[in-house]
Amino acid sequence: MQVPDWEDIRQAAKRIAPFVKRTPVFTSETLNRLTGAHLFFKCENFQKVGAFKFRGACNAVFSLNDSEARKGVCTHSSGNHAAALSLAARLRGIPAYVVMPENSPRVKVDAVQHYGGQITFCAPTLTAREQTLQKIQQQTGAVFIHPYNNFLVVAGQGTVALEFLEAIPDLDILLAPVGGGGLMSGTCLAASVLRPDIQLIGAEPAAADDACRSLQTGKIIPPENPRTIADGLRTSLCPLTFQVLQQHLDSILTVSEEGIVQAMRLIWERMKIVVEPSAAVPFAAVLEHKNRFRNRRVGIILSGGNVDLDRLPWFSPAPDARN
Amino acid sequence: MQVPDWEDIRQAAKRIAPFVKRTPVFTSETLNRLTGAHLFFKCENFQKVGAFKFRGACNAVFSLNDSEARKGVCTHSSGNHAAALSLAARLRGIPAYVVMPENSPRVKVDAVQHYGGQITFCAPTLTAREQTLQKIQQQTGAVFIHPYNNFLVVAGQGTVALEFLEAIPDLDILLAPVGGGGLMSGTCLAASVLRPDIQLIGAEPAAADDACRSLQTGKIIPPENPRTIADGLRTSLCPLTFQVLQQHLDSILTVSEEGIVQAMRLIWERMKIVVEPSAAVPFAAVLEHKNRFRNRRVGIILSGGNVDLDRLPWFSPAPDARN
Repeated sequence: MQVPDWEDIRQAAKRIAPFVKRTPVFTSETLNRLTGAHLFFKCENFQKVGAFKFRGACNAVFSLNDSEARKGVCTHSSGNHAAALSLAARLRGIPAYVVMPENSPRVKVDAVQHYGGQITFCAPTLTAREQTLQKIQQQTGAVFIHPYNNFLVVAGQGTVALEFLEAIPDLDILLAPVGGGGLMSGTCLAASVLRPDIQLIGAEPAAADDACRSLQTGKIIPPENPRTIADGLRTSLCPLTFQVLQQHLDSILTVSEEGIVQAMRLIWERMKIVVEPSAAVPFAAVLEHKNRFRNRRVGIILSGGNVDLDRLPWFSPAPDARN
Repeated sequence: MQVPDWEDIRQAAKRIAPFVKRTPVFTSETLNRLTGAHLFFKCENFQKVGAFKFRGACNAVFSLNDSEARKGVCTHSSGNHAAALSLAARLRGIPAYVVMPENSPRVKVDAVQHYGGQITFCAPTLTAREQTLQKIQQQTGAVFIHPYNNFLVVAGQGTVALEFLEAIPDLDILLAPVGGGGLMSGTCLAASVLRPDIQLIGAEPAAADDACRSLQTGKIIPPENPRTIADGLRTSLCPLTFQVLQQHLDSILTVSEEGIVQAMRLIWERMKIVVEPSAAVPFAAVLEHKNRFRNRRVGIILSGGNVDLDRLPWFSPAPDARN
């Protein structure tokens, strides 16, 4: 399977530069003191659409030639990728067709509509999603942009680490959350070129530790009914991302649900920024495995900031396993 | 009454530079579209202690000579100034004595203790506060640093506008919240020198419109039982700030409680940053008086980000008039 190389990531960076934000890197003396590490946070919660996903979607959309593009793009996703693809398509002036389960949270439906995505609802099963998507593809000829099993999407996500290491070149460790593995794969591919001796660590909820188990057993094991609050990390690895992580990842750390909520709240309280539960997972890993990070220069990718402010986890601590 | 001049603010900037953060200026395409204005947000919610108050406290503490400083500093405040003074004093290696009403919210007591302030509790009346403070001054010889009726504090707060106009020189309008008037006064004194033609507008809750009425009537009218969620803006102007605002302020806009909550939530949702209710008041003014700001380049000072995450206003919309 072909995997993006350094040149693909550099081209992605150039291609998406007019559209994406170069997000800042934040530090916090309080969180450094609390962990004993030197932490650097790359704030993709400030990215357009509120998540790194916009980079990959943008790279895919702006890589299409005009005749491909004219028919639009489509995907099935109820998360940040759907909103990201909708905005990227709008910027290119083409339609985006999004298949969403009919029980999707209102706030996610609103986001896709806000960015101009055309939603088709379907029953909340994988089969229904795939069949509905297929029908839309047949009707429209739109190009399917998978949220992470896509060469151009992974290359686009690699631009986070590229910018991060340009800003802070001497990181010892780089941490990102692992859901489908798109961000972590892009991070691995960029960082292993820019800084071959850097330690690359994935973080995922213990309640959705499919990536950990997949890498241990050497084959993709889908998550079984993942009951984690980190709604962006309930997805399974795919052939592309599995291959990259197998080759490059140093390790995966898992974290408890309480740890995720605590980490998220600390980031809000101490750094005064809004991050979603999935984005707090790597910092939760630092908190739960302090010895591993003490006195090291640790880069953490804050993947997104899309939270329903009416449903904060410290008000309803039971993990939400819908979706 | 002597008022800080440009040189006092420049000296404050130099004096506090080793200690304060040079906070970033954020923009949001979504909020620009929503208001029809070009908005620039100076993020003092990212300042140390989570509020601009650290600048004034720092300037006052580091202006003391060694024999004054040795005896420490004191204040009565249950808000951000108390935490700011505690940290400034710790950085100088001197004690900070803080008088707080015994019914102060736990989160504020924690903040002062976190930064090493020595708390004396008193009955929740102005008389009790002043008597307790006087006793502490007599016992310790500590210097009283008023939260805003203080030349050096106001000069320190002026460094916000100084940095802001260095970063974005061509603002048409500059907006800040008005509580005791320290931030707005410093803003007026700096901005009127750096950009004499800039419009200077204060914003305050309609439920605590004492500054508006004071300026209209020409004498300081204290707020009467101000029932506003903007807990930092319940205080009264003082002789120093009243004099500055009378001379420099172009106008004061008042906003509804619902407007404050809506503005706060929009900032959280769209900009992905945590601001406290008081900090959302100027943006609420833009939302409630759109015509006044359309197509103008508007600078907004986000004054702070200290919020009790267990008590968010969209969960308990009734304004909290305690404190």
